Amino acid sequence: DHERVLLGHGSGGRLSADLVGRVFLPEFGNEVLSALEDAATLTIDPRGEATRDQANRIAFTTDSFVVKPLFFPGGDIGKLAVHGTVNDLAVSGAQPLYLSAAFILEEGFQIDPLRRIVRSMRQACAAAGVALVTGDTKVVDRGKGDQIFITTTGIGVHRVDRDLSIHNARPGDAVIVSGTIGDHGITIMSTREGIEFETALESDTAPLNGLVEAMLEACPTIRAMRDPTRGGVSSTLNELAVASHVGIVLDEASLPVKPAVHSACEMLGLDPLYVANEGKLIAVVPGDRAEPLVEVMRRHPLGRDAAVIGRVVSEHPAMVVLRNAIGGQRVVSLLAGEQLPRIC
Amino acid sequence: DHERVLLGHGSGGRLSADLVGRVFLPEFGNEVLSALEDAATLTIDPRGEATRDQANRIAFTTDSFVVKPLFFPGGDIGKLAVHGTVNDLAVSGAQPLYLSAAFILEEGFQIDPLRRIVRSMRQACAAAGVALVTGDTKVVDRGKGDQIFITTTGIGVHRVDRDLSIHNARPGDAVIVSGTIGDHGITIMSTREGIEFETALESDTAPLNGLVEAMLEACPTIRAMRDPTRGGVSSTLNELAVASHVGIVLDEASLPVKPAVHSACEMLGLDPLYVANEGKLIAVVPGDRAEPLVEVMRRHPLGRDAAVIGRVVSEHPAMVVLRNAIGGQRVVSLLAGEQLPRIC
Ligand SMILES: Nc1ncnc2c1ncn2[C@@H]1O[C@H](COP(=O)(O)OP(=O)(O)OP(=O)(O)O)[C@@H](O)[C@H]1O
Ligand SMILES: Nc1ncnc2c1ncn2[C@@H]1O[C@H](COP(=O)(O)OP(=O)(O)OP(=O)(O)O)[C@@H](O)[C@H]1O
Ligand SMILES: [Mg+2]
Ligand SMILES: [Mg+2]
Ligand SMILES: [Mg+2]
Ligand SMILES: [Mg+2]
Ligand SMILES: [Mg+2]
Ligand SMILES: [Mg+2]
Repeated sequence: DHERVLLGHGSGGRLSADLVGRVFLPEFGNEVLSALEDAATLTIDPRGEATRDQANRIAFTTDSFVVKPLFFPGGDIGKLAVHGTVNDLAVSGAQPLYLSAAFILEEGFQIDPLRRIVRSMRQACAAAGVALVTGDTKVVDRGKGDQIFITTTGIGVHRVDRDLSIHNARPGDAVIVSGTIGDHGITIMSTREGIEFETALESDTAPLNGLVEAMLEACPTIRAMRDPTRGGVSSTLNELAVASHVGIVLDEASLPVKPAVHSACEMLGLDPLYVANEGKLIAVVPGDRAEPLVEVMRRHPLGRDAAVIGRVVSEHPAMVVLRNAIGGQRVVSLLAGEQLPRIC
Repeated sequence: DHERVLLGHGSGGRLSADLVGRVFLPEFGNEVLSALEDAATLTIDPRGEATRDQANRIAFTTDSFVVKPLFFPGGDIGKLAVHGTVNDLAVSGAQPLYLSAAFILEEGFQIDPLRRIVRSMRQACAAAGVALVTGDTKVVDRGKGDQIFITTTGIGVHRVDRDLSIHNARPGDAVIVSGTIGDHGITIMSTREGIEFETALESDTAPLNGLVEAMLEACPTIRAMRDPTRGGVSSTLNELAVASHVGIVLDEASLPVKPAVHSACEMLGLDPLYVANEGKLIAVVPGDRAEPLVEVMRRHPLGRDAAVIGRVVSEHPAMVVLRNAIGGQRVVSLLAGEQLPRIC
C-alpha cells in the first residue's frame, strides 16, 4: 500500500507510538531501546565491554526540535533544545553532563536570529551545568527545510545505583506533577493564532536537573519520573500504565492548571491533560512518601505548584482514569489525532 | 546587516569553517569543542567528575544527514547516517559502541521507503558492531522539510590511552589515504544529473572501525586520522595543516582516483580533492612507519587502494601544496563555494 507519514505521527500520542512500534522497533529493537525510557542506560567500562559492576552507568538520549515559531514567550527553539535533552537525562535519574547539537539550516535563514538562538543555547547550557562539546551544521536548499531544526543529544552519569524506570510503578504508589500543566503548548498555540490573554502566559521550558536532584536526595525511593512533553500528561501516564501493567486514577480537582490555560483550553476545545509541557515532570513514589516529597518540591522554584494528582491501582491495568469532583469518571486515552504540530 | 545562511555554509569548506568560527564557537566555545576534532573526548568517572586517571575516556560525535537523493548506488541516507557517525568515532581512535537516531519526517513521506531506510540502518549497525539505543521522531508539515532528515550521535570508548588529534602532525610525517577519492560525491552528483558511466560507480560509504583497529594495532604511533567527507581531502588536509601549524605537500601522481571519477571530474570541471568521501580516511604517521602501515591497510578490504599521498613539512605552515609529475606546484586551498549541496 501507499501508507504515508501523517502530522499525527509526530504528536507524541497514539500515532507516534504506532510508528515507533511498527516501523522502528521491529528493526532496531534491542533490550535497551525497547524499554522506551526517556534515556537509554548504558554501561561502559575501560575495556569497552558492557558489564554492570565495575562500569560507569551512563544515560544517553536524543531529541530533534522543529518548533514553530522559533521565538515565543518564555523561550525559543534553542532553549527548548537544551532543556529537552537535559530533562530526559534528569528524569532518568542521571546528572546531565555533555550535549551535542546538530543544526539543519535552511538556505536564506538570517544569521541574526541564528546568533540569538545560539546565545540562548549557551545560556541554557550554563544554567543547566552542561557543556556543549560537539556539533554539526548542514544547509538545505530554500523551501526544503524551515529556517532551523536542531537535534541535541545528551550524556549523563548515574551517580547512584538506582533504577528509575517507567516499568516500576506499583499499586499503592502516588502520582505527582511538579507544577501547572499545559503552559508550553498553550503558549505556542496562542502565539501562532495571535490569541492574547489577560495575564501573561509563558512557556514553562526549564532545566529540571536541579529539582530532580533535590527530589532524589529527599526521597531515594522514587520509582519513576518522566517529562510530559508532546502528548502531555495523558501520554506519559498511559506509557507508565502500560509499561508497569498498572491502572492509574487521576483526581481532576487536584490538577494544577493556570486560569489562562484553563480558559484557552475551553475556548479551543482542548484538554490540558493532552497539552505539551517543557519544564514539568511526573513522579511516581510509594504512597506514604508523596506528601513529604511534595513539600520538598514546593521549596524549589520549579516545583512551587507541585501536587499529588493521582494514584496507582491494580484495577484496570494499562488504563488511566480521571475522576471528577462529583465522582464521575472517564478513561484518559492516548492522544488520537495530531492536536498541534511542531510544538517542540 | 541582513546576512543570511548560504548553501555554501554547508559545504564543509571555507564558508562552513567561517560559520562555525564566527557564530557557533564564540558562544559555545570550550576547550573540547574548540579543538574541532571529529569527536569530542570526554572523561567520565562514577561520581560524574571529569578526572583523567580513574575515568573512562569516551568519544562523542554527531552529524545530521540531508542527502539527496535518499537512495543512490552503493547506499542510502540510512547507511550514510550510521557510517558517518561510526567513522567520526573510529578516526578519533575510539571503538564505536552506541548510536542514537533522530528522525525529522516530512508529512506525506511514504512508509515504504522509510522502512527500507530503517532496515538499512539496522544492517549498517550490525555490520559496524554498534547498538542503536535511543531515538526520536518528529514530523514537519508538507513543504517544510524534504522527506527525511536523520541525525545520528555516537558514543565510543577509547581503549588505550592514546591521543589521536589533528593537532599532532609534525614535519617528517607521511600522509596516507585509505583508497580512491571522490567516489561518494561523484556518485551522488551523477545520480542527480542522470549521468551514466561505462563502469559502474558506487558510493564508498562504509564503516571504518575495522580498518582503524587493524591500523592502530600495526602502528601505535599514528598521530592523526580524519575522514575526508564534505569538502573532500582538501578540507581535511587544510584543517590538519592549520591545527598542527605545519605545511603539507601532496604528490598528485600518487592520488588514487578511479577512472570513472577522473573523467566525471573532467567533464564537470571538478577536482577530486574537493569531492566528498564517506568510507575513506586520511592518516598521518611518522615517515618511516608509512610504508609498513600501507601494507597492512592493503590487506583490509577497505584499504586495498591505500597509498602514501604526501608529507608534512615545516615550510608554508597552515598551507597545503600539490606537486604534479613535472614538478609544478599549486596551493590547495579550502573549498570556496558550495560545489554540491546535500552530499551527505
Ligand atoms: N525513530 C525512533 N527509533 C527508535 N526509537 C525511537 C524513535 N523515536 C522514538 N523512539 C523511542 O521511543 C521512546 C519515546 O520517544 P519520545 O520522543 O516520545 O520520548 P521523549 O523524548 O521523552 O518525548 P519528546 O520527544 O516529546 O521530548 C523513547 O524511548 C525513544 O528512544
Ligand atoms: N553548529 C556547530 N556548533 C559547534 N560546533 C560545530 C558546529 N558544526 C560543526 N562543529 C564542529 O566543527 C568541527 C567540524 O565539523 P564537521 O561537521 O565539518 O566535521 P565532520 O562531522 O567530521 O564532517 P561531516 O559533517 O562532513 O561528516 C567538529 O569538531 C564539530 O564539532
Ligand atoms: Mg521525555
Ligand atoms: Mg524528550
Ligand atoms: Mg559533521
Ligand atoms: Mg569527520
Ligand atoms: Mg562526520
Ligand atoms: Mg523524543
